[in-house]
Amino acid sequence: MERHFDDELTHLKQKLLEMAGNAQAMIGFSIESLTQRKKEFSERVLEIEEKVNASEVEIENEVLRLLARRQPAAKDLRFLTGVLKINNDLERMADQACNISETIVFLLQEPPLKPLIDIPHMAYLAQVMIKDSLDAFVNHDPVLAKKVCEQDDEVDQINDQIFRELLTYMIEDPRAITRAVDLILVSRNLERIADHATNIAEEVVFIEQGDNIKHHACETKKTEPWNPPRVDC
Amino acid sequence: MERHFDDELTHLKQKLLEMAGNAQAMIGFSIESLTQRKKEFSERVLEIEEKVNASEVEIENEVLRLLARRQPAAKDLRFLTGVLKINNDLERMADQACNISETIVFLLQEPPLKPLIDIPHMAYLAQVMIKDSLDAFVNHDPVLAKKVCEQDDEVDQINDQIFRELLTYMIEDPRAITRAVDLILVSRNLERIADHATNIAEEVVFIEQGDNIKHHACETKKTEPWNPPRVDC
Repeated sequence: MERHFDDELTHLKQKLLEMAGNAQAMIGFSIESLTQRKKEFSERVLEIEEKVNASEVEIENEVLRLLARRQPAAKDLRFLTGVLKINNDLERMADQACNISETIVFLLQEPPLKPLIDIPHMAYLAQVMIKDSLDAFVNHDPVLAKKVCEQDDEVDQINDQIFRELLTYMIEDPRAITRAVDLILVSRNLERIADHATNIAEEVVFIEQGDNIKHHACETKKTEPWNPPRVDC
Repeated sequence: MERHFDDELTHLKQKLLEMAGNAQAMIGFSIESLTQRKKEFSERVLEIEEKVNASEVEIENEVLRLLARRQPAAKDLRFLTGVLKINNDLERMADQACNISETIVFLLQEPPLKPLIDIPHMAYLAQVMIKDSLDAFVNHDPVLAKKVCEQDDEVDQINDQIFRELLTYMIEDPRAITRAVDLILVSRNLERIADHATNIAEEVVFIEQGDNIKHHACETKKTEPWNPPRVDC
């Protein structure tokens, strides 16, 4: 018996949210691994990645099948192409979580460089952004989605702050360099994760309102290009 | 008078290639800026970005219009969703070129750290990968596309090598740290650009053959996770 189109869309949405749950778990475990200094959590991340990769292919195939068979228009069409892009962003978030875990496996071979404050805070903000962007998707809430885009600036600022602080550690003590660079890379990965959450949020606005806010939400950033902190040395 | 669907697809392809040309120019200028130490080239990159952003929105709208009006199936459908994703990859490549340029503007305020060999080589390889992935797209050539996926490993290896070399500079001389970290970031951006070229190549294989080779082409990488070079210090 053929399913109704609405049921198919709901089923697809559930699949996407399941994948999102796995991507979120990967990010959570990768940061737990760093803060609790437990390698097992990082290994867990790499295991979950298999599931996320499988979901990505499955969701993509399902979207193509629905586009071909149901030939949707207007909002349903935007929903389906939106799912295609959110799917891609979730998979890339999962990739970033893998990068974090791989870096952490090496970081844990050395004593901690410093008590971590900003990185867990940044991870928390990125996780809130992901949650909010997905809630906006589920609840058809473009207002919440636009809020996510604004939060991205805060994450970028913390990323700069982390970079600046770690540079001073490197300058003071060459033995800190490897670990400091690793932490800079983790911070960059978290920044990329927040960027993907922003992409999802922009996609939600497009699905709901048909407005493309990409490159606009970030206009303030464009006039103030990323300013790498400089340290006199 | 209404255009034929084939003409519309050809027109879309041309638009995408024009955008690709701009993204390639941005990458070229950003690296020229570094090797020739000319800030003007970096500023040029930021100017071209405007065009790339406008193209991205325009192409996306055109794909949605064609999906809605023409309701394509099979290969035409894969072509259109493929264009949607290649479009996204090109825009992200352009973003990476902006990141490179922004970093270089600061790098050029200080004397050169070292003669640059690996970074221009890596940039050259990434540019070849982009050219090949686009040629594969234009000429319906999945064999060339698969070759691009293989080249990605070489770029990853050079990225590791650059990281390793720059760590030694930082350890030897704290005054080198800021510039070395900047060069590591440029190298990371180039690695991401090569990743996007790989995504495009994977998409070409999917358009032409209907096979999803994502996560497969990279299986060798998955069993050997990224191994950040360690330096005893």
